[in-house]
Amino acid sequence: MTGTLYGVGLGPGDPDLITRKAARLIETARVVAYPALAGGNSFARSIAAGLIPATAREIVMDVPMTSAREPAQAAYDKGAASIAMALEQGEDVICLCEGDPFLFGSFMYLHARLAPRFAVQVVPGVSSLTASAARAGLPLAARNERLTVLPAPLPEDELTARIEGADSVVVLKLGRHLAKLRRVIDRLGLLDRATYVERATLEGERICPLADAPATAPYFSMIILTKGADPWL
Amino acid sequence: MTGTLYGVGLGPGDPDLITRKAARLIETARVVAYPALAGGNSFARSIAAGLIPATAREIVMDVPMTSAREPAQAAYDKGAASIAMALEQGEDVICLCEGDPFLFGSFMYLHARLAPRFAVQVVPGVSSLTASAARAGLPLAARNERLTVLPAPLPEDELTARIEGADSVVVLKLGRHLAKLRRVIDRLGLLDRATYVERATLEGERICPLADAPATAPYFSMIILTKGADPWL
Repeated sequence: MTGTLYGVGLGPGDPDLITRKAARLIETARVVAYPALAGGNSFARSIAAGLIPATAREIVMDVPMTSAREPAQAAYDKGAASIAMALEQGEDVICLCEGDPFLFGSFMYLHARLAPRFAVQVVPGVSSLTASAARAGLPLAARNERLTVLPAPLPEDELTARIEGADSVVVLKLGRHLAKLRRVIDRLGLLDRATYVERATLEGERICPLADAPATAPYFSMIILTKGADPWL
Repeated sequence: MTGTLYGVGLGPGDPDLITRKAARLIETARVVAYPALAGGNSFARSIAAGLIPATAREIVMDVPMTSAREPAQAAYDKGAASIAMALEQGEDVICLCEGDPFLFGSFMYLHARLAPRFAVQVVPGVSSLTASAARAGLPLAARNERLTVLPAPLPEDELTARIEGADSVVVLKLGRHLAKLRRVIDRLGLLDRATYVERATLEGERICPLADAPATAPYFSMIILTKGADPWL
């Protein structure tokens, strides 16, 4: 009997936002796996740290921070091979994922590699999208409103086209793209509807109007653009 | 001292997908509030049923199932008044919300009415969006992909325009709009990328290609349209 791979969403960062199902799976894990910045820390592991049994074996996937394709693929190839070995020995593997595994989560690379050969269960988590909206007190979408989710690295023209005429918009992965986004949103006359959220639910959380945002943003930050006054309220 | 209103996301339906924070708030609640179909059941209450103390006072908001504006507004006006009375008496009120409170959740109507006068905390929950994707084994978005979330009641022309040229799309609130969506997606030549998900994580869950979906869908159902093959995988 081979084991099952669980891709477990941990939520946005506050360990209290882990689901009961995820907590139980981690607390009883014999093997956990997670990505880490090459040679550095693992955000996923830090969220779940209080739940991981001391006896659990840990498979660390060192993922390089690069937009190049091959080094990241190689890291997931290697991680998938280590996980496959544990699954073949009949062990279940609990893969720790920040946020939700299937919404801009690296688990999808493991899923693509391992789901054809092994039983895989995905446990959804609270996404940073709705966690940031909750912390900022900003409803995202109601009734027949549309929600558009855009990664900040997209080209300026495309961001402009997608934001113009949208209802609510969330722009993720700001990092070094913050200035570009501020330019786009300002040019569209939407700066007064834009909120900046950094490290939602974590220590050092920062929420402010985009106009007052710092010059540089971390990767885990976003802009929430709301549609404005709702006639139903 | 007035009380605090907590808008607590319960996740898509499986009580195991309630977060630890939400579970603790409900288990220690003295007053809970939730919407119910007028004269009928409350989906939100059913998710949390195993956690609600027998001693808790329950404020039920009978919300009519109608797209008309005034009856729903009246229901939330009345609910907000009852909740305000408890808050003024110094009680905290735990408002139970299916999914996430700020993503197509009715809590935003209470938030609009009560946040100007009382302390309000929103506890994000697992959205049915990512829960459905998890159950279907369908990654929603990676890297620089966009995600578009559309409510099914939108006009056919607009749905066509928004789905065409999108990356991943989730269409929520299918109900009696299922046939329209199938027509739109078929006409765009995307039927082979469309998955139908009904009652994700609940008893009676149904997941199948959209082409094989039943003729009528419940309100809590969705279509996931994925972008197709990912060159990174």
